[in-house]
Formats: sequence, C-alpha cells, structure tokens
Amino acid sequence: MRLAPLLLALAFALPACALHAQTRIPDAAVDKAGQLREQALASDLGWKITESLTTEVGPRLAGTEADARAVAWAKAKFAELGYDKVWTEPVTFPKWERRSESAEVLGEHAQPLVLTALGGSPGGTVEGEVVRFADLDALKAAPEGSLAGKIAFVDYQMKRQRDGGDYRNGGGVRWGGPSLAIRKGAKAFLMRSAGTDKSRAAHTGNTGFEDGLEPIPSAALSTIDADQLARLVALGPTRVRVALDCGFDGEYTSQNVIGEITGSERPDEVVLLAGHLDSWDLGTGAIDDAAGIAITMATGALLKPLQPKRSIRVVAFANEEQGLWGGRAYAEKHASEVAKHVISAESDFGAGRIYGFDSSAREGEKAAFDKIAAALAPLGIEAMPGEGSPESDIGPMTRQGMAWAWLGHDGTHYFDLHHNAEDTLDKVDPEALAQNVAAYTVFTWLAAQAEGDFGSAPKAADAED
Amino acid sequence: MRLAPLLLALAFALPACALHAQTRIPDAAVDKAGQLREQALASDLGWKITESLTTEVGPRLAGTEADARAVAWAKAKFAELGYDKVWTEPVTFPKWERRSESAEVLGEHAQPLVLTALGGSPGGTVEGEVVRFADLDALKAAPEGSLAGKIAFVDYQMKRQRDGGDYRNGGGVRWGGPSLAIRKGAKAFLMRSAGTDKSRAAHTGNTGFEDGLEPIPSAALSTIDADQLARLVALGPTRVRVALDCGFDGEYTSQNVIGEITGSERPDEVVLLAGHLDSWDLGTGAIDDAAGIAITMATGALLKPLQPKRSIRVVAFANEEQGLWGGRAYAEKHASEVAKHVISAESDFGAGRIYGFDSSAREGEKAAFDKIAAALAPLGIEAMPGEGSPESDIGPMTRQGMAWAWLGHDGTHYFDLHHNAEDTLDKVDPEALAQNVAAYTVFTWLAAQAEGDFGSAPKAADAED
Repeated sequence: MRLAPLLLALAFALPACALHAQTRIPDAAVDKAGQLREQALASDLGWKITESLTTEVGPRLAGTEADARAVAWAKAKFAELGYDKVWTEPVTFPKWERRSESAEVLGEHAQPLVLTALGGSPGGTVEGEVVRFADLDALKAAPEGSLAGKIAFVDYQMKRQRDGGDYRNGGGVRWGGPSLAIRKGAKAFLMRSAGTDKSRAAHTGNTGFEDGLEPIPSAALSTIDADQLARLVALGPTRVRVALDCGFDGEYTSQNVIGEITGSERPDEVVLLAGHLDSWDLGTGAIDDAAGIAITMATGALLKPLQPKRSIRVVAFANEEQGLWGGRAYAEKHASEVAKHVISAESDFGAGRIYGFDSSAREGEKAAFDKIAAALAPLGIEAMPGEGSPESDIGPMTRQGMAWAWLGHDGTHYFDLHHNAEDTLDKVDPEALAQNVAAYTVFTWLAAQAEGDFGSAPKAADAED
Repeated sequence: MRLAPLLLALAFALPACALHAQTRIPDAAVDKAGQLREQALASDLGWKITESLTTEVGPRLAGTEADARAVAWAKAKFAELGYDKVWTEPVTFPKWERRSESAEVLGEHAQPLVLTALGGSPGGTVEGEVVRFADLDALKAAPEGSLAGKIAFVDYQMKRQRDGGDYRNGGGVRWGGPSLAIRKGAKAFLMRSAGTDKSRAAHTGNTGFEDGLEPIPSAALSTIDADQLARLVALGPTRVRVALDCGFDGEYTSQNVIGEITGSERPDEVVLLAGHLDSWDLGTGAIDDAAGIAITMATGALLKPLQPKRSIRVVAFANEEQGLWGGRAYAEKHASEVAKHVISAESDFGAGRIYGFDSSAREGEKAAFDKIAAALAPLGIEAMPGEGSPESDIGPMTRQGMAWAWLGHDGTHYFDLHHNAEDTLDKVDPEALAQNVAAYTVFTWLAAQAEGDFGSAPKAADAED
C-alpha cells in the first residue's frame, strides 16, 4: 500500500507503461509468499501426482484408450485435490497410430537398427541406399532429384544446453527434413534423434509434410544407431530396409481438463497455469509432461486454503505433442476472454530446477515483476528479462494478447529423455520438483493477489504495442 | 640367469613348490616388458579391432547368419594381423532363436512393459496375475502350488560392485528362478534384469530348466519396468500378458577360431589367450566380448615382431553365452595337451581398467608371479593373490589342470550394459582398452619368455594338489 505513490510516479516515468494500469503487489502477499515457498519445498504433493499419472495411466498417446483414461484421471485428481470447479472442453484432431517399426542394414554388414517413426509419418516398407548428410543445410544443398530411389539420413548431433536452445536445429531436422528429402527424390527419411543422450532409445516427435508432397516413411534412429549407420556408410554403399506400420486413422475427440480454485474477490479474473496431459507412447511421459501437470495441479491445491483473490485455473491440455491441438482449441473457445486471463504460465520443459524468471509483464509492471522476482530469488531463480517465452499450449492465447510468465527449468538433460522410452518417473528428482512447485506457488499467489493487471489485452485493441 | 640359484633355493624352501620345476623370468624379458607396456598404451589396435567387429558384424547371436560372418571376420582378422597359423575347430550346439517378445499390463492400468526373453526360454503367450517376490529366497519360501495359474516375478535388485560379485545373486535369479517358479505352479517367469543400470534396456542371458520340468516362458523386465510393475502390484491385483516367440530349432555348428604366433624356441608350448566371438543379440556385444577378442588379438599382434619363445595362441570361442559350448569343445579336443598349455588368460569381463592380477601359479612360481606383478604395477594393477579365477571359456580346460592367470577388469559398470541393447562401441573407453592391451601384452610376453612351466598338469596326475 505504502509504495503506491512511488509506483505511480515510476509508471508515468516509463513510456512503455502508459497503456496499462500499474500493477502492485501488497506487502502482506509478499510476506505470505515466503511461508508458501517453504511449505511447498517441504511438500511431496508434486511427486505424488507425477507418480500417480505415470504409474496408473502410463504412456498416453493422444487418441489412444490411454488418452481417455488420462482424462478421467485428471478429472478425478482435480476433484481429489479440492478444486472448486472441474470441467472438460472437447478437442478434436486426426488420430495417428504407431503399430510397429523396424529397420535393418542389408548385405554383408546385416544388422538391426533401432529407430522410431516420427509422429505423422505414413507407414511403408522401403529399401534403398542410404545417403548421409551432416545437417539440414547439407540436405538442402543436394541437387533436386539426386536422392531418387534412396534414403536420406540427416545426422545432425544436437548440443546439450541449459535452455535447450539447440532444439531449434535438432527439432528443425525433424520438422523440415522429410519435406526436403521428398523434394530431392528420397523414398524414406531417417534422422539422428533430436536428443543429447548416447543411448539406444530413439526419440520420436511430430513431423509434417508440405502441401502437395507425397509423404514418405520418416523415422529417427537412436543416437547410437546413427553413429553405427554413419560408420557403415563410411565403409561403403549401405542399403537399409525401413519398415513402418503407422499412420492416420480417422479423428478422435479428447478433452482439455480444467480445474479451478474460485477467486475469493475477483473470481472472473484468472491466473492460468498449464501443462499437457498427453504424452508420446515410448516412455511414460514423466518429464514431458506429467511433471508440468503435477507442478500446476499441486500449485492450485497448495493455494486453495489461502483463498486467493483471483481464480486459479489449471488446464491439463489435450494433444500438445501432435500440434498444440488443446492449446489452439482453448484459444479459439476463450478468444473473447483474453483480458480476463490476467497472466499465464505453462510448465512443459521437464522437472529440472527452475533457474530463470521472465514475463511479458516486465515493463509497465516492473515493480510487480521485481517483487515476484525477489520472492523467487531464495529458490535460486534469477530475473532474466528478455530471456523467456511462453511455453507450448499457452502460445496461441498469448499471441492473442494474454500476458505470460516464464519459469525456466534447467533443461541440460531434458533432451536426453525427450520423447523417448527413458522418459520415466525415475528421471524426476523429487527435490527439484518440489522447487518447481515452490516457484509456481510463489508466482501464482502473487499474481492472484496483485492489484492491477499484467497487461493482458486483445491484440486487436493493442496492435501498436 | 644370475637369479637362478636364489630361485632354486626358494623353491625348495616352499613345500607347495615341490611338485613343479621352478619358473623363472629372464631379466632381459622384464626390461623388454617395460617397452612393450608403453608401446601398447600408445597403440589403438585394440580399439580398431573392437570397432571393426562391432560395426562390420554387429550383434552375433550364436547360430545366426551373423555367427558365420563373425567366424569369417575372425579368420580374416587373424590373417590381417600377421598370425602365423589360423584355423577353426567345430562347435555344435542347439540353436535358440528370438523372434519377437512383448508384454503388457491388462485392465485399468493397461500399458506395455519392456522385457526380453531369457536364452533357452520357450515361446508362448500367457496371461495371469503377477505375484512379486523380493528375491529368490522369497520365491523359494512360497508354498508348493501357490502360484498355480499365476506369473512369478522376482524383483531382486543387483548391487554395483567393482568385481561384479553380486552377479552371483542377480544371475542366480536367472539361472534358478524359472525352475523354482515351475515347481510352485507358475505359468510364466519374470525377473528384474540382472543389471545395475536404471534404464529401459532389458538384460537377456541364458537360463535352463531342471530335467523333468515343463519349461515356461521366462523373461527379464528392464529395471525401470520392474519398478513400474512393483508399483502397480502394490496398488492392487495386476494382470499381465507375456508373449514370447522364441525357442530351440535344431542344431548349429559354429567354429572356435584360433590364431597362433608360432614360438621361436618352444613352439609346442602355448600361452593361451581367449575371448568369445559370439554375443547376445540386443547390443553389438562391445564389452561382451568384442573387447576381449580385441585385447587378445592385439596382444598376439603386438608381440609377433619380438619372436616370443613360446607360441601365443588366441582363441575366439564360439557360443560362450549359451553355455560355454566353445570352451567345452576346446577342452574335450585338447584334453591330452593340458601340460603344453603352460598358462592361460581370458578377457570376458568388459573393458574397464584392469586393477588386479592373480594366477593359479602363485605358490611354487612365486618369484615369477612377483616379477609379472611388478611389471604390471605401473599400469595401476595390484597383485591380489586368492582374489582371481579363470574366466568363462577357459574354465573347462583349467578344471583339467591348465594354469591360469586373472587380469581383473574394473566391473563397476559392467552390469549396466551386460547382455542388453546398450552394450555398444561407445561404451568402450579407448584409454582403458589400451591399458587392458598393455596388461595382456606384458603378462603374455613374460609368460612366453619364462623358463619353467606354471604348473599346468593333467588333474588326474595332480589330484593331491
């Protein structure tokens, strides 16, 4: 309260603030945040939720029987955790199935290769000589038609980074490689997994094909099998048989599952937290994204007894993995409510310790940003203005103008496990997970208690920003 | 030469020596060993052989087409390395095949489980409730018939040890568990992999069934899947479907492949080195046992220019994995030549640094033992009398009286990779492998140059020892 005049003065001193009412966070809320932080650090609720989802449901590929069980699990878990409202919103998408997959080197060095089909790949059995490219640029440089009858193999080795930034390149091979290979004439596409591990666990993940191209079987080799294939190709011409049985089969309707703690003073204003409920099928989706579901579900549950002023809405999104289907459905359905979503945060980058904090609301709302950052600092979290971005499912809504926060997980080992069979419960460190929950709890509490908004406004009305 | 009188005196002073002529190692040989040690440490020959076998042949399950390619590879490699004689000796065994394998939890927690059939298991598809036992003793304690219609699951967690000693227990579950489960009425047998890793890579390995029992499908879950199944069983009755397509199909004749550097002075006296050429099918058999093949092949090749006095015989044994078939065939064929095999060493415990040296020839031949130990010491190898034993394939021949040496590899991580898909080239540390080759080179050289034997003598004539 006593800071208000100063904040107001600051607001007028900073041109970027002019369009928004200044946001302030009451001191009492800050004091309470300190207690909450310690309480969350001591809680194993996040762990228990992660264990429950990964054990009781296990892998939950969108569109499978396990997708439906995951939806039922989420509804029951929100209710069990005391959420005031629990509802679902339908999300319809094309259903992609993985049935079987194998590959083998043919001829004098005959041996199996471990691979996994990319999501969206068609099935098919293809034999051909492998042409290796060190990266996507090398494939781009291949003459048109030069891969006729051959199998393209892009062997880009992803680098391990705290912020996972090299996924731009590793994931880029997955997104862009198949269409590029088709244009060069290839009849199948292989890539080194977009992963930073050295193991036999191949990393799946979604791909797509440009309009007008005939899709070809597309798969990722484990990093070790990529090394092996590279060695074999270096020895001489190497023929491989790739056999994928997978593809699209109709549509499926899953659900975004939503739990809400009703705000005690401003129930129609929402702090939106999110994770995604679906996973790839190879692991049990522990770091991707049972942890995100657990962190956000636990946050609402831990805050409920404090009767936060604003509503806390936790969304367990459907089918993030195959194209943000849940996030896009939500943004479409709630397009007119952007301003009521005062701020949002999604946890979809594992369960490593959170090291950085950023937000779209860091200019006009600098004082609030700084107070949240100060409350997060004892958790080893640094304010990193300009370093963050909104994660996955909340993207479509933030592009419509919803304010976002970024609580950045240490992703050094995230891509060791991302989308492969090793993404299992044992990879989640309970202490790091509790730190994650503590960070979300502190942030969410302060956002719910803040006076003034964080700048959420429909883009149309705010286009000059 | 000048030490001879002293050694002779010592020999008579020690009662245990009385049966053997004293063994002595000339000083010139010891001096040369120091140079050899450095030369071997600087050589990448062991690495190149390991890379060649694991890349060009890949997995080489006994009885498969790759077994025949491995035999051809070994013959060619011995020749390429300049071995004076190369020959093969047939080894016939029942052929066991793995065709497919899968398992899944049924019902409300439906999900796949990663497992692999144990070698020797019959095929079959079985559904039943899982009964978990913490270890083999717990299964032993179950009442007869109490597992009727059920699936036994022994969840023993192997401990990581430098000498791999807990394989007694982990492997013990694999060897003894299936028959025990049959006696209790079980219709399938599952075990936690005999492995010290935490991964989705299940560890195969041989099992067998006691006479008079009807074999049941028997498989090992990955350690992570064992954890998952244990959690599910703790939640309530858990039904699982196990589907194995595997089993015996006739006989196959493979070959022990033998290369020899002919001794310059005592060509009929042999220092025997060994590894096994076959591997399990899941990995490329890098640490088990391409490394052993490479260490011993490289040793002979590095010693050849020095024209060692005794012959150095390197055996790449056939089908060790499914019951020491190559080792037993060799012992049978060469039973009358025990005394001519002056000493032997097998490398079949990975490619970790060698830390310990022992030998059956450490009493009557103490001076020689000590000289060899002293020459190994600069490699960080400690004399550990009484700690070693002969490894795998040479066992049958040592039981007939052949002297043996033990060059003990650090096996701390051996059982992370043993018999699973992760046993691949990248797991071999080139520097540690060069140390292994250096140790074998030093030992083999001194054994080849030694005067006097190491106590090899047919057991019948030496039964009181």
